Amino acid sequence: MALPIITIGRSFGSGGRLIGKKVATLLNIPLYDRELIALTAERSGFHETVVEQMQQDRPASLLYTLTHTSIEVPLQDKVFFAQTKVIKELAAQGPCVIVGRCADSILEQDHHTLEVFIHAPLEMRAERAEKVYHLEAKNFKDLVKKKDKARKAYYDYFTHRTWGKADHYDLCINSAIGINLAADIIARAARAMAEK
Amino acid sequence: MALPIITIGRSFGSGGRLIGKKVATLLNIPLYDRELIALTAERSGFHETVVEQMQQDRPASLLYTLTHTSIEVPLQDKVFFAQTKVIKELAAQGPCVIVGRCADSILEQDHHTLEVFIHAPLEMRAERAEKVYHLEAKNFKDLVKKKDKARKAYYDYFTHRTWGKADHYDLCINSAIGINLAADIIARAARAMAEK
Repeated sequence: MALPIITIGRSFGSGGRLIGKKVATLLNIPLYDRELIALTAERSGFHETVVEQMQQDRPASLLYTLTHTSIEVPLQDKVFFAQTKVIKELAAQGPCVIVGRCADSILEQDHHTLEVFIHAPLEMRAERAEKVYHLEAKNFKDLVKKKDKARKAYYDYFTHRTWGKADHYDLCINSAIGINLAADIIARAARAMAEK
Repeated sequence: MALPIITIGRSFGSGGRLIGKKVATLLNIPLYDRELIALTAERSGFHETVVEQMQQDRPASLLYTLTHTSIEVPLQDKVFFAQTKVIKELAAQGPCVIVGRCADSILEQDHHTLEVFIHAPLEMRAERAEKVYHLEAKNFKDLVKKKDKARKAYYDYFTHRTWGKADHYDLCINSAIGINLAADIIARAARAMAEK
């Protein structure tokens, strides 16, 4: 069997993107992360800034939706549907690594996938946000928690799964065990699936 | 650094015990699973049957506790405390694999640990309960769900963590990727931790 499509969900600041990059290099397959923003923008006609913002916002609450009813599909949903198409097209081209974007849920029915979730202790992620991502914040732990909250809300809204619940994934890894080790484990699991 | 103590939590029927056994063989370290029942019985003075039953029962509800107040510590708590002592003594002797028994939470503060959670799809676990464990049930899926519910209640009660939530563990593995592969991944991570 071919290598699986590897989807990587990740808590903010856990190094999931870097791990994805290393996995793609180890397996010599394409990585899609921020590239998806440009592709979605191209397909949907929205500007890249809009696409990016829509993925970082928490979806509108039910109360908001009920009080602002309209026959128009919300912008965030439109962007999500455009991105879903992009992800399905890329997956149809062969094995790859896709970081975030609910790709695990989008591809689970039709594809041979290895679904991964990367997390790390809060202290480590706060440090990463400050020293590696060079973000600005008064309190980095609060920033990380806020980003996680938005990711969870976005994921739970669009997938009807629960973000970070172990049994939704094939592998969940605490990146504190080591970024290279995490990438090795994922690549090893993917190769083993290809040999089945 | 030495090999870590490997704790393996697992959903019912996921093959966590078998994976633990394979990891212990790969690393040539002791495995403690059902042995803990005998050791706890010995230390606490309770019969093995009582110890085993206490670990399978859901802890008493708050309502029950409030309406049955007594100065006596509940039997389940007594057994848990005795087992906690046994686990700490074993951990002090050196690297080992401990299956279940909230060992992850018991040892997290004082020991060099690799905390693992094993799960698998419901269908696979129901089949395992029937064909590998040779249990009897009208509906094996219901049996597995009921066992999980009791494990979760027991774990959440005694640890104040949430059973099966990815970020409590270093590695969560869906055993559907392969029992041997899962054992290999855990052993590899343990060896990498020892080399740090």
